[in-house]
Amino acid sequence: MKKYWSERIQNLVPYTPGEQPKDRVFIKLNTNENPYPPSPKVMQAIGAVEDSALRLYPDPEATALRQAIAEYHGLKPEQVFCGNGSDEVLGLCFYAFFFPGKKVVFPDITYSFYPVYTELFGLDYEQIPLNEDFTLPVEKFLGGNGGAVICNPNAPTGRTLPLSEIRRILHANPDAVVLVDEAYADFGAQSAVELINEYPNLIVVCTMSKSRSLAGMRIGYALGSAELIAGVNCVKNSFNSYPLDRLALAAGEAAIRDVEYFERTRTMVMHTRERTAQRLRAMGFFVHDSNANFLFITHPDKTGEQLQQGLRERGVLVRWFNKPRISQYLRVSIGTDAEMDAMCAACEDILKG
Amino acid sequence: MKKYWSERIQNLVPYTPGEQPKDRVFIKLNTNENPYPPSPKVMQAIGAVEDSALRLYPDPEATALRQAIAEYHGLKPEQVFCGNGSDEVLGLCFYAFFFPGKKVVFPDITYSFYPVYTELFGLDYEQIPLNEDFTLPVEKFLGGNGGAVICNPNAPTGRTLPLSEIRRILHANPDAVVLVDEAYADFGAQSAVELINEYPNLIVVCTMSKSRSLAGMRIGYALGSAELIAGVNCVKNSFNSYPLDRLALAAGEAAIRDVEYFERTRTMVMHTRERTAQRLRAMGFFVHDSNANFLFITHPDKTGEQLQQGLRERGVLVRWFNKPRISQYLRVSIGTDAEMDAMCAACEDILKG
Repeated sequence: MKKYWSERIQNLVPYTPGEQPKDRVFIKLNTNENPYPPSPKVMQAIGAVEDSALRLYPDPEATALRQAIAEYHGLKPEQVFCGNGSDEVLGLCFYAFFFPGKKVVFPDITYSFYPVYTELFGLDYEQIPLNEDFTLPVEKFLGGNGGAVICNPNAPTGRTLPLSEIRRILHANPDAVVLVDEAYADFGAQSAVELINEYPNLIVVCTMSKSRSLAGMRIGYALGSAELIAGVNCVKNSFNSYPLDRLALAAGEAAIRDVEYFERTRTMVMHTRERTAQRLRAMGFFVHDSNANFLFITHPDKTGEQLQQGLRERGVLVRWFNKPRISQYLRVSIGTDAEMDAMCAACEDILKG
Repeated sequence: MKKYWSERIQNLVPYTPGEQPKDRVFIKLNTNENPYPPSPKVMQAIGAVEDSALRLYPDPEATALRQAIAEYHGLKPEQVFCGNGSDEVLGLCFYAFFFPGKKVVFPDITYSFYPVYTELFGLDYEQIPLNEDFTLPVEKFLGGNGGAVICNPNAPTGRTLPLSEIRRILHANPDAVVLVDEAYADFGAQSAVELINEYPNLIVVCTMSKSRSLAGMRIGYALGSAELIAGVNCVKNSFNSYPLDRLALAAGEAAIRDVEYFERTRTMVMHTRERTAQRLRAMGFFVHDSNANFLFITHPDKTGEQLQQGLRERGVLVRWFNKPRISQYLRVSIGTDAEMDAMCAACEDILKG
């Protein structure tokens, strides 16, 4: 019991992000960062902001950034909300659309921040077990709930639900919001953004942290009907009027407008992913098909913990979740070809021992 | 009724920030920004961040920034919390320390974001009327509540509560958190930070938006006992692990370490404030004594709305609150001497008409 803490937070267990090492230089494949720097146009845009501008509040409506995002996705600016990383955007959406007493559903194996939001906000929720092969039991999401959250491709498995199944879920939940978290969709999944004008209950959450190489700048956004976006804005404007600083606004706009750089770097990541998957399979790993910038892997001869520790000792950080059903797995972010070669060599070394 | 909005937000009235004009060049005295750019060391620190660093998540614990802030205030890093502007810090504190059913108290005339947070989070609250001269009726804050929030100097009046009175309030509320919002304290008020090691129920919230000229970078922080700071961290880590991007972290650290620049620019603002107050009084304005970077003024010959409109027509933006008790007043931020001379000349012109 912490004397001054509100009852609401006495038993809260916060989300634990992947390690950000400060001392030793690791090959860092543990937090799904992009191995390539952001577009050169991002640094130009940041450099073009004058020092005297920093004394002034940023645009609370992120008008220019929302315009650029709307153009990229073929939507209207009033269908775009921008926030301080997709984590903040998700948090604001959970508060805006889900309500205690109306059960929100999401899979048991998914982004582990979802149950943290529901605990934080006192929401009722149910975690639906994924099938044995980590596919989504779609029929369990067809109505009777107060909202659904689907990470697609899913984290940390990398498995993707086809758009036809997303459509079925949207269709079966006309009175509840279906949130599709597409943090990783740029690496090969079909986006649900094309369904937005058809389903007023669909909100899609995106991030610039992965495919735009801007994890360090905290830029996330949501896309949906004008009514849903107004709801997120209502919460944002009741919590923090200016979640994006002037440099983040400039960086995000430059990043979304540089389509050529985006296409080139995401293609490189996808190519490296397939090359790495092939090599790991040749070593006896079971590797799930992935449409994300990571692979979810397991090996019959070693535990997940042994593999993670062994890789760490060899200078490679990966993510291991000590959780039911997935404790034998590692989630390995996709780095450069050279980094993945080093990771594979370290795995070979571990498997020899 | 918005179909997909949670019941919690159906009737929410968000905070309205001051206008950020995009078209015409105004003398902008409406949002309490600093007329001087940030320290040159801030731009150096931003320029020193390499593009390849932006692909990596920032330090979720803001270790280096917290260390710099702790050193500046003579506290330990575990007594410092950093967030995305003091608005976010305030929001997280309200959620961490106040609870429905336990009434939180703050004045009727104060920062108008406080009642927005309490509505957003479903908190019970009471707005205690300030005395006729806008001083705080201290005896009404001496216990029997579930928390107290005091903006000191107060916004938008600029009036300051002496530290001895803050101490009385802390002493009388041993079981409730007293939040002192010192957004403007650097412009001449005595800070309550020196009471932190004495009162475990005291949390002080600060911002770099005003005295550090960094409104555009969104950096706020809270100072308090390690238990209180852990509580804010618990909420932050259940909502958004990384609220400060890499450039904001670098900017904030450089700003707090450049004490010489800080002292010089805040002294200039205070000097301009006193010079402006004198000139306005000579014109027949009633000007409250202010320890903030703004003046709260009223004139017997014109309404607040007339003055605001007249100034706007003459190219000067100031803030007018159409609210009970203060609708005859204007809040005028302190700009450069030249800007304030132009504002005073515009007032003279309005009073002639």
